[in-house]
Formats: sequence, C-alpha cells, structure tokens
Amino acid sequence: MALFGKNSLEFKTFTYSNIDRNLIMTTQAKDPSSNMDAIKRLADVVDARRADFLAGKSDPDISYIAKLFSKGDDAILKKIGEEAAETVMAAKDSRFSNLAPAMQTKFVGEIADLWFHCFVALSQFNLRPEDVIAELERREGVSGIAEKAARKN
Amino acid sequence: MALFGKNSLEFKTFTYSNIDRNLIMTTQAKDPSSNMDAIKRLADVVDARRADFLAGKSDPDISYIAKLFSKGDDAILKKIGEEAAETVMAAKDSRFSNLAPAMQTKFVGEIADLWFHCFVALSQFNLRPEDVIAELERREGVSGIAEKAARKN
Amino acid sequence: MALFGKNSLEFKTFTYSNIDRNLIMTTQAKDPSSNMDAIKRLADVVDARRADFLAGKSDPDISYIAKLFSKGDDAILKKIGEEAAETVMAAKDSRFSNLAPAMQTKFVGEIADLWFHCFVALSQFNLRPEDVIAELERREGVSGIAEKAARKN
Amino acid sequence: MALFGKNSLEFKTFTYSNIDRNLIMTTQAKDPSSNMDAIKRLADVVDARRADFLAGKSDPDISYIAKLFSKGDDAILKKIGEEAAETVMAAKDSRFSNLAPAMQTKFVGEIADLWFHCFVALSQFNLRPEDVIAELERREGVSGIAEKAARKN
Repeated sequence: MALFGKNSLEFKTFTYSNIDRNLIMTTQAKDPSSNMDAIKRLADVVDARRADFLAGKSDPDISYIAKLFSKGDDAILKKIGEEAAETVMAAKDSRFSNLAPAMQTKFVGEIADLWFHCFVALSQFNLRPEDVIAELERREGVSGIAEKAARKN
Repeated sequence: MALFGKNSLEFKTFTYSNIDRNLIMTTQAKDPSSNMDAIKRLADVVDARRADFLAGKSDPDISYIAKLFSKGDDAILKKIGEEAAETVMAAKDSRFSNLAPAMQTKFVGEIADLWFHCFVALSQFNLRPEDVIAELERREGVSGIAEKAARKN
Repeated sequence: MALFGKNSLEFKTFTYSNIDRNLIMTTQAKDPSSNMDAIKRLADVVDARRADFLAGKSDPDISYIAKLFSKGDDAILKKIGEEAAETVMAAKDSRFSNLAPAMQTKFVGEIADLWFHCFVALSQFNLRPEDVIAELERREGVSGIAEKAARKN
Repeated sequence: MALFGKNSLEFKTFTYSNIDRNLIMTTQAKDPSSNMDAIKRLADVVDARRADFLAGKSDPDISYIAKLFSKGDDAILKKIGEEAAETVMAAKDSRFSNLAPAMQTKFVGEIADLWFHCFVALSQFNLRPEDVIAELERREGVSGIAEKAARKN
C-alpha cells in the first residue's frame, strides 16, 4: 500500500498539466519506446518478487508485493475490484474539478494502481502483460477488418 | 461489444498454452519492443475515433468506441467496473480449471477488455496510456529506493 | 434493464427530499414493518420468475429477470460489479451536487438496482435475502458484544 | 473489518444447509417479520455511530464503523467496490463447490458485508435503507404493470 497507494508520499511531488502534457512529462513519457519497456521491466520485478516469495526469500511484512502473493488469489483479485472503484471515483473527481491537474494526476495514479494489480494477478496465474498486449494487438487487426466490413453493410 | 467482447468471434480461433506460451505466441508477443508499441497504436486509434465522434464523423450504431463516447463518462466508467468483475470471474474459472489454456485465454481477454476500456476512459479525459506507464515507471524507481530503505530498518 | 434500470421512465416521476424525507415518503416507507415485507415479496417474485424460467414458461425476450436467468451465473454476477460501479458514481454525483434531491434519488435507485441484482443472484444459488438479513442480525448481536469487549481493553 | 469481515471469528460457528435451510435457520430467519426489522435496527446502530463520531464521542481506533466515517466518502464507497468483488468471488467458489454449505455461508456473508457497507454509505449521505426498500417496492408495482403491458404487445 505504501509503495503504490494514492496516499504514498511520492504523489505529493508529482504534478503534470492536462493542458500541455508534453511540456512537463518525463523524458520517458516523451519517448514511447523507452517508456513502453517499463511494463516489461515492472512485470519482471513482480515475477522476481513472486519467485522470491515462493522460495521463502521475501518478507511479507516488508514487501507489499510479497504480502499479496502470501495472501493468494482472492486478496489479489479483490484489489482489482477495489482499484476499479477508486479509478471510477478519481475520474468523477477529475471531471467535477474540470480536469484540474492534481485530479488528473490522481486519476492516472489510480489506473496505474489498477494495472499494477493486474500485473500481480497475471504473475500469480503464470501469465505476463505481454500476453494481454498481444491480445490487444490481435484485436486491433481483427477489429480494423470488422469495422471495415461493418461500414460496407 | 462485438469488437472486443468475450463473445466476439475472434476468441474462437485463438488459443495459447500457459505451459509453453513462448512456442505459440505471436511474433509481436515474442518481440516485446514491437509488442509494446501496440498500446500506443491502440491509443492512437481510440483518440482518432474520439476526434471523429466529436467532429460528427462517426456513427455510434456502427462503431463500438463511438457509441461509448456518445454515451459519455458514466457509460465508459461503468464498463471499468463491469470488466473488473469479469476479470475476477475469469481468474476464478481459470484457477478452478487448473489454469486450462482456454480459461487462461479468457482471463487474458478480460484483462484486455479492462485495459481497453481504461484507454477509452483516458482518451475521454484527454489523457494517454503513456501517462499511466510513466507513472508506473516513476514508481518503479521510487519503490526500489523505498524497499531498499525499508530493508535497512 | 427497462424495468429496473436508471433510465426507465419510472424514475422521471419520483422525487423525494433529503431535507425532510418523511414528508414525501410513501406510506410504506413511513411504516417500516409493511415496508420491510417488500424485500420478501420481491424475492418471491424473483423466485417465481426463476421457477417459470426453469419450467420453460417465461420468455427472456420479454422479462428482464428471465433473461438474466437464461444467461446464467456470470451474467448475473457481472451486474453486481456494474451496479456497484454505478452506485459509487451516483454517490459522487450526489456529493458534488450538495445532495440535491434528484441526485439523492438516483443514488437510492442505484443501490436498489444493486440489491435487486443481489436478490437475483441469491435466487440463482437457491438462497434468500432473509438469509442475508439473518446473518446481519446475528452479527449485530456478536458485534455489540465484540465492541463492548474491545472497549474494556 | 474484525466485526463484519469474512475472517472474523463469528463465521466459524455458523453453518446452514442450502438443501434444507429451514431446518437450521435462526428463529429470526424463520420469522420474516421479526427478521426484516433487523435492517432498520442495524441502520439505527449505524446512524447512532455516525452521530457519536460527528459529536467526537467515538474512537476510530476501536469502532470499525467510526473509522469508516472518519475516513469519509471515498473510503466508504471503495468498500462497496471491494465487497462487490468479494461477493462475485464467493459466488464462484460456491458454484465450483456445488453449493457446499460452507461456501454458501461465505457467499451470504459477503452479500451481508456488501449490504452493510451500503447502510454505512446511506447514513453518510443522510439516507436510510428504508428509502431503498421503498424504491424497490415502488418498482415492484410499476414493473408488474410494465410486464403486463409488455405481454400484451
């Protein structure tokens, strides 16, 4: 919770503008190719923590990720429901603030929480974010054709 | 629903093994760098559909994405809650099947649905998946330091 | 959806004040004992629809409840996730409107949707709302004792 | 969490059969009229705790309910998303166990958690479960007419 939760200290020092995001985004965000590798690296970290946990090498009292793995499927899946609810609430807050930067940041942070817990769930089931991305990519192709076909009718 | 839903035809012809995923994954899945660009490309498609919708150039009766944008915030956010529930159910199905390939595929497909609707929500709020990934990347650094600090205590 | 959804016509003619709810609540709402029987009666209706559906006597094209039963567990459970998200959104809308009566009514309506789909889920699993209420009642006693014990420590 | 969570001690001593529920239900469960008053009584307890909290008379460290009120809207609403996910998981567990009594009990307990947190949310917004029940009752009348009308077409 401390490391990825919305109450963690790290949120206090990070703001970005929704008006001109490019001006203030990090170097990584401006360079999609380096940026995108972050998913793979983060999944590697999650997998490594899971391997450590399974080998009895991590302490659930210290590592938030080890704690999730020690609790098992339901604790991990419950977080997906919880983070989905927090994502929805943050979106409403952002809209009611007319997309104020602090609220947009919170919204982005909640989706990051949601995705992060998806990474943990994928690891728990011996899967990888790359599998999800491959599925999205496959659909992109399929749906392009499907939409084209639909337009002809 | 037709294009990305779990009942769409595309699901019928796609299976992959959780035992040896690498053997049957697509070329893109094997090559993370090309694979990861899929998120950016898909977000571009979503943004283009939103621009079309806002310009009155798309038909909500034909395009699933245009339909979501025409309904607005709540319809999009509701899908995040719904897809989170479907993700949780698919995970349970997969576990009870001992991670049978068809169930793992369904689980991956539900997370793809969940992330896809996050892309739509991000577009609706003038944001990009790259923002979420930059946030995840930023935390990766912060949390590495934070975990190190925690271990010293 | 037509019968219980938030877009149904019935919502248009119903408003109540959160400032002085007692002045405008229905007779049933003012009389808790008759009011509370509504849960039992509604569960009876749901059970009867399920019996009709199982006997092939109902048409999923006409009855929303029969349609849910025809789709099975996942379709019913997915609605609980969806209605939970809608409840959360309606609560946020209500707060941002300073508890405006129309928003409070929508919030109450979303919780009604959530509970109604719980009734359907309970019926699908051969259970009754009375079981849930008995559990709540049992906890009321247990928790009273537990809180008392906690205060002593 | 301790008082109403699925891990609380109270769950260990309570089982009921889905095969012949009437044989083992509590006296209250067998008598719907006394049973149904439980909702009103529990809402009274929740409202009293909220009044105590607002008056500075309760300790969030001791009372779970006071703790929720001290955290505010989002903490309460997040629980609705979390408990909805737990309800969905418990339902899946119950189905995969062929409705084993222990799993049915867990499912009922999760819906009790979900409804209980709805009571807290309603109190937070100056509303009552009776408002939800009145709405359900109103729809029961409307939907009876609506279904009748639909059958004629």
